[in-house]
Amino acid sequence: MRPAVKQIAIIGMGLIGGSLGLAIKAAQGSNIEIVGIDTNKLALTIAKQCGAADLITTDYKTGVENADIVFLCTPVLQIAAHISEIAFHVKKGAILTDTGSTKTYLMEKIAAVLPREVHYIPGHPMAGREKSGIEAAECTLFRDKWYIVIPDAKVDSRAMETLCQVISWTGARITQMNAAQHDRCTALISHMPHIGAAALVTLLQYSEDQETSIKLAGGGFRDTTRIASSNADMWADICMTNTEPIADSLDKFSQIISDVAEKIRQKDRNSIHAFFANAKARRDALLRLEQQFSE
Amino acid sequence: MRPAVKQIAIIGMGLIGGSLGLAIKAAQGSNIEIVGIDTNKLALTIAKQCGAADLITTDYKTGVENADIVFLCTPVLQIAAHISEIAFHVKKGAILTDTGSTKTYLMEKIAAVLPREVHYIPGHPMAGREKSGIEAAECTLFRDKWYIVIPDAKVDSRAMETLCQVISWTGARITQMNAAQHDRCTALISHMPHIGAAALVTLLQYSEDQETSIKLAGGGFRDTTRIASSNADMWADICMTNTEPIADSLDKFSQIISDVAEKIRQKDRNSIHAFFANAKARRDALLRLEQQFSE
Repeated sequence: MRPAVKQIAIIGMGLIGGSLGLAIKAAQGSNIEIVGIDTNKLALTIAKQCGAADLITTDYKTGVENADIVFLCTPVLQIAAHISEIAFHVKKGAILTDTGSTKTYLMEKIAAVLPREVHYIPGHPMAGREKSGIEAAECTLFRDKWYIVIPDAKVDSRAMETLCQVISWTGARITQMNAAQHDRCTALISHMPHIGAAALVTLLQYSEDQETSIKLAGGGFRDTTRIASSNADMWADICMTNTEPIADSLDKFSQIISDVAEKIRQKDRNSIHAFFANAKARRDALLRLEQQFSE
Repeated sequence: MRPAVKQIAIIGMGLIGGSLGLAIKAAQGSNIEIVGIDTNKLALTIAKQCGAADLITTDYKTGVENADIVFLCTPVLQIAAHISEIAFHVKKGAILTDTGSTKTYLMEKIAAVLPREVHYIPGHPMAGREKSGIEAAECTLFRDKWYIVIPDAKVDSRAMETLCQVISWTGARITQMNAAQHDRCTALISHMPHIGAAALVTLLQYSEDQETSIKLAGGGFRDTTRIASSNADMWADICMTNTEPIADSLDKFSQIISDVAEKIRQKDRNSIHAFFANAKARRDALLRLEQQFSE
């Protein structure tokens, strides 16, 4: 029999934590009590007003002590900094999960301090926005998005089942993978576009024609750099906790860019044409594949 | 008195040429006759059917001979390859303009062969789409977009006035700059995002997890790489005709990416945070500036 979930604590009432609260309350109403925990009192007030939390507190010790499931939704390094204090206040048999964007780093930190009676199952909802904070939270944020769950070999099957049940309330689709694969894939598909977008904007600062350039910015520039307006704290944490996969991908990315510059200087039209034609074919094929996954 | 424009020839009935025809016909109806010229008979048939051209021909010699204005709308290297043949069939006193994405290269080629009696005024509408071809043409493509006109010091003021009048029929906003500045600015604001997007897609081919990665692709990847699905011929031509500005910007871009990788390996969170925070502040400021230009 599945253990009943009555209370869920969410630490970090920002975009992800707030949207989780809204989605769970929208699906379950008064069946589930949400405790919103944050150091930011304004965020808590908004969370309560908008219905993302039933109870709010700045004290994670009392906040987590009755929860059947605790979601850690702060940026990765904040989770790492506080996990040893939080862990001992989670009740025996409860589930602890996190929504951090990088996994290997955090899993090692958490595994090192977690009491054995708490079931830790890492997670990562693939649902970001360029806006952050509780003001940007939406109850539909996770709907039809992938929610990656990363159980280890010793995972308690009932705890796993319970967590997946709760995640399914948000409308997300659940998939499983291991932490190393997660970190390599997200470096490629999520962290590279973010760093690339920020680098494109940074490039403008070297220009003597910055104002004229921006006057000419079309939809291409706006779309390509949209995610450069994302939260700097979160992205700095991601880079600090997924170091090797990101740095390795950046090296390859930089090399591709250098090669293109060299081929352009050599006036090697065939190579440059192939570069664009292959990219177009690959993107079109990948989006068809993505479409299949969505069906 | 402004010389009356009765017939306009458009060479290259693709996205830009087709949209020009549609926009001019929408504004002027039967006051203006559009001659659509292309080597692709199917494109011509579609152009006539959708109302982008009144007359169609695969023969640019007869196609241009009665036109008051000739728009060259094929990719840049195709314009360069055929300009010497076309130029001598344009009638005396007519205006020749092009919509090529790079300017210095083409202006030199055209100036070298153009009869003195033809007024050449280069242009560049900042209105691309990732789709190409007459099928993607829209009469609103240029509306509220910048249309750059690049008159030289000796430009005939009546010819300039006439061309600007015709461009204004499309709903575009006209701005002027010189060719070198145009090529530097577009390298930064348009060519870099395109090459960056294609490079991000290319990066995936080095991955052992390509399928899993794409499964996790969020809106970030889709938006950042949208323009990687653009026309390879057009972009190869752009790279071959704006060599130095593009290669110089790519070198800087590659350097920025390498620096970020190095700072990440050094675990230098402050520098990485500043990189993201500065990019966010710069992008937000630039979009406010862009907004001002739009008002």
